[in-house]
Amino acid sequence: MAKIFAVNAGSSSLKFQLFDMPEEKVITKGLIERIGLKDSVFSINLGTDRHKETKDIMNHEEAVALLLERLISLGVIQSLNEIDGVGHRVVHGGELFSDSALIDEDTLNKIEELSELAPLHNPANATGIKEFQKALPDVPHVAVFDTAFHQTMPESSFLYSLPYQYYKDYGIRKYGFHGTSHKYVSERAAELLERPLSQLRLISCHLGNGASIAAIKGGKSLDTSMGFTPLAGVTMGTRSGNIDPALIPYVMEKTGKTAEEVITVLNKESGMLGVSGFSSDLRDIELEANNGNYRAELALDIFADRIHKYLGSYAARMSGVDAIIFTAGIGENSASIRAKVLNGLEFMGIYWDPNLNNIRGQEVFVNYPHSPVKVIVIPTDEEIMIARDVVRLSK
Amino acid sequence: MAKIFAVNAGSSSLKFQLFDMPEEKVITKGLIERIGLKDSVFSINLGTDRHKETKDIMNHEEAVALLLERLISLGVIQSLNEIDGVGHRVVHGGELFSDSALIDEDTLNKIEELSELAPLHNPANATGIKEFQKALPDVPHVAVFDTAFHQTMPESSFLYSLPYQYYKDYGIRKYGFHGTSHKYVSERAAELLERPLSQLRLISCHLGNGASIAAIKGGKSLDTSMGFTPLAGVTMGTRSGNIDPALIPYVMEKTGKTAEEVITVLNKESGMLGVSGFSSDLRDIELEANNGNYRAELALDIFADRIHKYLGSYAARMSGVDAIIFTAGIGENSASIRAKVLNGLEFMGIYWDPNLNNIRGQEVFVNYPHSPVKVIVIPTDEEIMIARDVVRLSK
Repeated sequence: MAKIFAVNAGSSSLKFQLFDMPEEKVITKGLIERIGLKDSVFSINLGTDRHKETKDIMNHEEAVALLLERLISLGVIQSLNEIDGVGHRVVHGGELFSDSALIDEDTLNKIEELSELAPLHNPANATGIKEFQKALPDVPHVAVFDTAFHQTMPESSFLYSLPYQYYKDYGIRKYGFHGTSHKYVSERAAELLERPLSQLRLISCHLGNGASIAAIKGGKSLDTSMGFTPLAGVTMGTRSGNIDPALIPYVMEKTGKTAEEVITVLNKESGMLGVSGFSSDLRDIELEANNGNYRAELALDIFADRIHKYLGSYAARMSGVDAIIFTAGIGENSASIRAKVLNGLEFMGIYWDPNLNNIRGQEVFVNYPHSPVKVIVIPTDEEIMIARDVVRLSK
Repeated sequence: MAKIFAVNAGSSSLKFQLFDMPEEKVITKGLIERIGLKDSVFSINLGTDRHKETKDIMNHEEAVALLLERLISLGVIQSLNEIDGVGHRVVHGGELFSDSALIDEDTLNKIEELSELAPLHNPANATGIKEFQKALPDVPHVAVFDTAFHQTMPESSFLYSLPYQYYKDYGIRKYGFHGTSHKYVSERAAELLERPLSQLRLISCHLGNGASIAAIKGGKSLDTSMGFTPLAGVTMGTRSGNIDPALIPYVMEKTGKTAEEVITVLNKESGMLGVSGFSSDLRDIELEANNGNYRAELALDIFADRIHKYLGSYAARMSGVDAIIFTAGIGENSASIRAKVLNGLEFMGIYWDPNLNNIRGQEVFVNYPHSPVKVIVIPTDEEIMIARDVVRLSK
């Protein structure tokens, strides 16, 4: 039996989950927020209770120290020696990582080099790794990349129709994200379908505040909607997804913004927030739509339309589909978005039951039994994938 | 019986076709090139002969004067009085024109105002109109817009997931192009299918050096792949189609180009030219691919993959599809691109015959007789649509 940490370090936050492996039992989980700011918040689940405290935490070193100290003082573990490994979520693995990797100096250098491709994420991920390595120097640390699962995409999927030299010189290609989640739900779908993953054509819809769709054939990512960055693909909470690229200089000219500032608008003020005008939170928007707010309804329609079209697109990519998977916040919880996305797809063999669909956050089939294409809601679990990879790569 | 001109004025060119209507017989057609440059070229078909001459033509006024003079001196017509109307192709009708329009001062002003949305095209189109109006002041002139057919798209199709105010303030939305062609082939498909257009769900693939796909339901455009500009959508000869918008500042930083310059690369150095590295011409690329050139093959695969995925996407958009149409240079002539695009779509009811597909430039069904979804190659004819609209709107 081993205790394994799954850690996700952001620029001002640290999410953690501690597992007993291989039982995959969650011992505890929690979050440190506002690192480097005043009034940082540390919160952790203790059985049915929740411990929460506010204090200034200057940096990730202090955050890690506090976390490890509290694990002992709150009685979660007796000693740091009980911790057998740490898995770190890393956003960008570029073309260097097609699987999770045991972290040595070389791995860490590569993660830092890849910061160019993910300037907002990889530096924070690397900081998290370094601080945990200092605090727990004798256990294996493993990096689990959001992009790794998509490294199986063929060139016809990942290459943009740009001058080829841009790919060779600047690494410009589709990388795709949410790989750990797409991998988890695809493996889980094979179990639920009681069929070998190698024989399945799956479309995985990871719909959270960020959203991406993946075409997964024989357990391998064949195509995905996000691109060089997580901005591309479908409409999201605050992200535009794909737009006509020519709009960027047009918006620059109209608004006086720089290209970077326009991309910030596309990342933070667009998507369902931009269309609805008042919120990026699907629950708010659904509520307002029910009250007859036209633009709220429009935001839902646009969000669902873009995903709906990807279902057709990726079914075509795989010459058909065996199952559609919905996961992440919206995918797991919004029956109405699933209904809009699934509506009118009988022509491709999708027959679903509105009663079965009327659930939240459960692992459940929502297709009619006779439906050639199955539709499954699967709550995602990226943390368990991270813990599993620590066990696998530490052997 | 009426003689009607269909005219397409570019910044340095003037294409024309003269019809006998309503018989739709082509009396003559031709082209003036290099207007405003040295050694302009005027060429015109005369029965089976072709007249060609090189001389300096300073501007569109001179081009129109030369054309009309030559029509008489070459014996095509006896007098300008025989010409009963002129139809002008205009690229951008914005949200102001959902149909062709008789040109009066107000129409012309609007076309010029819309130059903001099509700075490369509308000014030249307007110049063409003004010069023909001066030369033929007593006949009706009609503007036929590339965007008009797509004005039936619902907001869920045409609105980007950007701040809504960008639509209201700057007209930022999907307009779509090639509308005259999509309309022609969809009407022709209904005739060939012997079914009312109002009952048909069609996907029209206009594949030329520019390429766009349209979902046409009941004769109305429901969605299309081009966007605010003709840059968006699928891979084209030299255009990138959709890319991750975040790539624009990244390419700017890497290359030192301005945003406008990056868009120029996306318009002129990308697409199949960018991927193959040597040509935007499909025939060159097919030849090289047959010789084993890997990047030529990749360019074909990427081009076909993007269209292939739109077929699935637009079938989903319409809850199924009754017929797929291929038109324009590549769509009419490349059996191998059609084969790649159609490959593996049996799951959505598309069964096609490689022998029937092995044709060029003919109006032909390439599906097996039993195929639920029909596949039709239809040579497009934008000029006849322009001439028809002149007749319709001149009554």
